[in-house]
Amino acid sequence: MDSALPPIAPDLAELARRLFAELRAADHDGTGITRETYGLGETAAMRRIEKLAQQAGLATEWDAAANLHITLPGTDPSLPAAACGSHLDSVPQGGNFDGAAGVIAGLLALLGAQRDAQRTGPRARTLLLLVMRGEESAWYGRPYLGSSALFGAFDPKWLDLPCLQDSSRTLRDAMAGEGAEVAVVAARRKLLDPASLSHFVELHIEQGPVMVARGVPVGLVSGIRGNFRHPGARCQGEAAHSGAVPRWLRRDAVLGAADLAMRLDASWRTLLERGEDLVMTFGIFTTDPREHAMTRVPGEVRFTLEYRSESEATLEDFLALAESEAAEIARERRVRIELGPAVRTPPAVMDARLLAHAQALCGAAGLPHETLASGAGHDAAIFANAGVPSAMVFVRNEHGSHNPHEAMEMEDFLEGAAVLQALLLQGAEVVGR
Amino acid sequence: MDSALPPIAPDLAELARRLFAELRAADHDGTGITRETYGLGETAAMRRIEKLAQQAGLATEWDAAANLHITLPGTDPSLPAAACGSHLDSVPQGGNFDGAAGVIAGLLALLGAQRDAQRTGPRARTLLLLVMRGEESAWYGRPYLGSSALFGAFDPKWLDLPCLQDSSRTLRDAMAGEGAEVAVVAARRKLLDPASLSHFVELHIEQGPVMVARGVPVGLVSGIRGNFRHPGARCQGEAAHSGAVPRWLRRDAVLGAADLAMRLDASWRTLLERGEDLVMTFGIFTTDPREHAMTRVPGEVRFTLEYRSESEATLEDFLALAESEAAEIARERRVRIELGPAVRTPPAVMDARLLAHAQALCGAAGLPHETLASGAGHDAAIFANAGVPSAMVFVRNEHGSHNPHEAMEMEDFLEGAAVLQALLLQGAEVVGR
Repeated sequence: MDSALPPIAPDLAELARRLFAELRAADHDGTGITRETYGLGETAAMRRIEKLAQQAGLATEWDAAANLHITLPGTDPSLPAAACGSHLDSVPQGGNFDGAAGVIAGLLALLGAQRDAQRTGPRARTLLLLVMRGEESAWYGRPYLGSSALFGAFDPKWLDLPCLQDSSRTLRDAMAGEGAEVAVVAARRKLLDPASLSHFVELHIEQGPVMVARGVPVGLVSGIRGNFRHPGARCQGEAAHSGAVPRWLRRDAVLGAADLAMRLDASWRTLLERGEDLVMTFGIFTTDPREHAMTRVPGEVRFTLEYRSESEATLEDFLALAESEAAEIARERRVRIELGPAVRTPPAVMDARLLAHAQALCGAAGLPHETLASGAGHDAAIFANAGVPSAMVFVRNEHGSHNPHEAMEMEDFLEGAAVLQALLLQGAEVVGR
Repeated sequence: MDSALPPIAPDLAELARRLFAELRAADHDGTGITRETYGLGETAAMRRIEKLAQQAGLATEWDAAANLHITLPGTDPSLPAAACGSHLDSVPQGGNFDGAAGVIAGLLALLGAQRDAQRTGPRARTLLLLVMRGEESAWYGRPYLGSSALFGAFDPKWLDLPCLQDSSRTLRDAMAGEGAEVAVVAARRKLLDPASLSHFVELHIEQGPVMVARGVPVGLVSGIRGNFRHPGARCQGEAAHSGAVPRWLRRDAVLGAADLAMRLDASWRTLLERGEDLVMTFGIFTTDPREHAMTRVPGEVRFTLEYRSESEATLEDFLALAESEAAEIARERRVRIELGPAVRTPPAVMDARLLAHAQALCGAAGLPHETLASGAGHDAAIFANAGVPSAMVFVRNEHGSHNPHEAMEMEDFLEGAAVLQALLLQGAEVVGR
């Protein structure tokens, strides 16, 4: 099995630099990068990529969801294509690398393979770069619009979603305006057969701080975390005079909810020590502003609880734990804790063989890397859940994403792009499709 | 030493019943009892008491703060007077017993003593019932107005306080309107020399639920809790993506503040087990509504912390403990916890000899009683802190106070009134003044 990790050629690295600069120049408004989902800026950025691909002799095509397919055709069309890709839309005033890095890395991979073919003869397998629409939920409240449409997973109800920034416009209007065939998408027709792909690889900047903290340029994604959410949890006690009610007669809602937070925090630590993947967040936690006071035993706390894991079993276990701790606290502290039903988003498992191969590639090349879970969602999850063996490569990125301060170093990007390229070219053999 | 606990005579009990009913009829607006501080209703209620006292032949006098002094003069004016009293104002839509119970119990004590004197000859020591103004802070934001004025502790700045229910009116206007000599009060002239009183006793309904829970009609107050307050405490962490930031890189403000709450709760329990008096309340506890979200690691929690104790040393110890726990959590969880300076209100110690005498009286009479701290403030605290040996008798009261549902049983009241009467008559000998 081929397990080389050739670097990106210097002229292609230069092309990538130029492309990032051009995208920035086109879409930076003085504060940040804004490329609206199914918007003019997104389309213009896609056309910029298309033009470069066409100039290099690659084939291009737009599907019914207005996703762009760029192809380096192989000599054997019966072989499933090796695919990569990402998105070009951004959140309002976001950064220059979220999404774009994956598209440009994919373009470099196709151009590099094309150049190799000129030397060693054409490849049998087709290579496909997908430039997908509407990955960000910031515009219509729903992420992965283009990739969902690929596999007939686009819910027609989404067409009526208003633009969060301009409610006079719906997603239907925006899609039609940028050339999508809305009726085809709404009919949930598959634009791409999962069986027609050998595998899918996506490069993306890391959206968390782990790689910066660890000092590694390249991350290999073990899975995309699913989450369970309790958006309307509460702890109900009894409001009372803070001076005249002793401890044994209190039903303190803050102490009840704080007790739950501390017990789950301790369990979280224990699960991490056992090697489980988990993050947990009480993002909102508040006494009732209409009645709370410094001299009043708090009668109610409203809170949210979210936990994420690569493992659905871990999420189910944590839910059971939270419910059991809540019941115990209720007895001990004479409060009522209602978590409410969990809103579930399942995890997406990355292909273990592709991951192991990527680890081996990096290890053999002496490239510092780290295996980690993706806390944020990505188009790759749609491919994985459609049955396409998938992998993700993260690139170190300071200051997180979804803000103008994304800071990816080109050196790190080129290391990641080399891993993406190798996975794209070698992955089909690894998964045997 | 006299240690009898004679009951209230049936006709005086009947008088008390009638007085409570008259007060209720005069000041119940359909929802609750409203007698404004330095208001018409308060004055009318005082005049109702005065009229009864005068009809019985007691002496009455109004001081410069418009407090009413009712006297059963003794034969030896050089002896310090034995005093009791309470207030007649209420919170807006309060109950019928907060304050009034103490005034009526005091009147029964003087009338009972007057009747005894007709049988056994006049007493040497003068008995004094003080009907004091403005005990409730609900009207001008400051409690104990009348009793503070007695001892020159009325801050002239208070005169400019606007009425919380009608800001066009100041406390000065209200006091002048009800006959106070504002200039005398503002000059902080003492209206009563603490040395002219042997001791002071106040009966009051319990404002907490302890006595109902314990099933005792009469409470003996060991002290009036002071408090330390941190009105603007906060825990500062760092907001972050709830999915992409692992535990070891988080600075979670909710977990930091919840950790503090749980540690202090554990210390509170320990201190109670050691016999210390303490209550602790995180009354307000809230993530920042402008930026909190279910999928965001919370960057800030604002909270209040209040703790109360009869012992100033316990308050100081708890403050030191809170600061030390906060510093430890800050190190462990990489957050910043700022409690801010403590706003201190000192405790008022009830006289230990009077308390022991009251306990002995109840014990000998087989009257179920409980010794407890007062969590709420009372006029008696002003007397104690002015150097007058003071005692308080609580009467069981369902549903707390400051609401229309105060529920004191007459039987309980008469038990308490008997204790008050005995303490008024016997207390001077107990304290040797």
